[in-house]
Amino acid sequence: MSDQPTPTFISLDDAAAMTEGTRVTFIPGLQALYSEALKNVCFVKGISLTRALHPPMGIDKETGEDRQARLFELTSQTSLPTMFHDDERPRNVWIEQLALAERVGSPSAPALIPDDVAQRVEMFGLCAVILGEDGMVWNMRIMNDGPLSRKYGYNKTASAAAPAKVAEVIALIDARLKTQAENGSAYLVGDAVSAADIYWATMSMCVTATPPDIMPVTAQNQGMLKFFASNAKVPAIAEVLTPRIEEHQHYILKTYCETPAVLGGDPL
Amino acid sequence: MSDQPTPTFISLDDAAAMTEGTRVTFIPGLQALYSEALKNVCFVKGISLTRALHPPMGIDKETGEDRQARLFELTSQTSLPTMFHDDERPRNVWIEQLALAERVGSPSAPALIPDDVAQRVEMFGLCAVILGEDGMVWNMRIMNDGPLSRKYGYNKTASAAAPAKVAEVIALIDARLKTQAENGSAYLVGDAVSAADIYWATMSMCVTATPPDIMPVTAQNQGMLKFFASNAKVPAIAEVLTPRIEEHQHYILKTYCETPAVLGGDPL
Repeated sequence: MSDQPTPTFISLDDAAAMTEGTRVTFIPGLQALYSEALKNVCFVKGISLTRALHPPMGIDKETGEDRQARLFELTSQTSLPTMFHDDERPRNVWIEQLALAERVGSPSAPALIPDDVAQRVEMFGLCAVILGEDGMVWNMRIMNDGPLSRKYGYNKTASAAAPAKVAEVIALIDARLKTQAENGSAYLVGDAVSAADIYWATMSMCVTATPPDIMPVTAQNQGMLKFFASNAKVPAIAEVLTPRIEEHQHYILKTYCETPAVLGGDPL
Repeated sequence: MSDQPTPTFISLDDAAAMTEGTRVTFIPGLQALYSEALKNVCFVKGISLTRALHPPMGIDKETGEDRQARLFELTSQTSLPTMFHDDERPRNVWIEQLALAERVGSPSAPALIPDDVAQRVEMFGLCAVILGEDGMVWNMRIMNDGPLSRKYGYNKTASAAAPAKVAEVIALIDARLKTQAENGSAYLVGDAVSAADIYWATMSMCVTATPPDIMPVTAQNQGMLKFFASNAKVPAIAEVLTPRIEEHQHYILKTYCETPAVLGGDPL
């Protein structure tokens, strides 16, 4: 049993009705990766988050209605997470969520988008192959069949190609960390932390066995943790995972993000 | 008077109600840049576009209602363009529109997202500093005060910094085109056309005087064309604009896109 703080989750409707503050949707007890990454981005930026419940996929057994119908009404999409800030329109895509967090974050927080334009190209490009369609997380999802992978274009051909695509991104990141270390930097871009570090450290948890002092076990996430740990053993992925990847992940998460991660749900 | 074909524009409601085909919002006669770029991306990908009317900003004088209220209902945002495909959710952000176009485009069309992951990093990174928040077009907009620039965060400090930020992106692109040419490539990434070329060639029209065989003059766009041509003379920008920028722009638009651009409206 963990002694971590228990966060409060408000309803989606309450989150949408608020006109002040930053609200992000989550699933209690589960490190849904895009929510987790946005939570970490907001943590670095000193943004106080109100957590809201993200409605699950599927049909409500009692009413027969799509459980995400209200979410779609509010955001014109259904993916996790949506982000509300003050009375602004919702942000549903990582690149817009990052821009919003950078804008509304504390002036004393680190810049997650580098000032230098060449470094920006690198940072946004790295994030896109990690977070974007046909990127690392996308391909990790379609390695196996299931409702979520079907939402993201699962088919046998795409699924067969997926581990190699995941591995390509890991290898690219690893090569970059090596070059950066040779130049005296512990970060993916330039000589300071950027969004690329925060996103990569969070998202790469889907291909590593992450220790509980970073990602605690809950009733809700124990299956996911096992699944993520098993991804690390997929041959194409195991071949490119290095201690360097793990060291960077642990360093970034422990130094810049809240660890152990605060998830809510039922800690074990 | 031009003899260019006259496109048909359907209503936003009709576009939203359709369940087949690709629909994108436009303003007739005006090369609203994000619509124009998406039109060019779809042209390269062999996607047949249905054009829909994007409702203008502001209050309807007769009804007193927000003219973009229905657009917000349908897409949870108001920016130009929104993109519908078949019965899928609308796409409102360039990075999602590009992924959709790449997915639904003709199999025989060029890939606009490179296969190689290192080239993907470059391509997405370049697009982000051209198209994204605080990018080239964003800063071009806030160089002057007005309703659109106020939507995009105009204030005196940001406006004063904007020309240098626009110039930084132009200089980065120019340096890249130079290196690429030295390596025998006419393109921004690798040795083939990519989304970076299409987006840059289109968006850079906001800082160049573009000839009418590429961008014809209409009753609706003549002011905008003059404004864009005058941007080319802003000292910080004039300093970094090279013949190389213009040659690449003309080459990409004339080789890969439909020229003269088909705009509708009232050609002059």
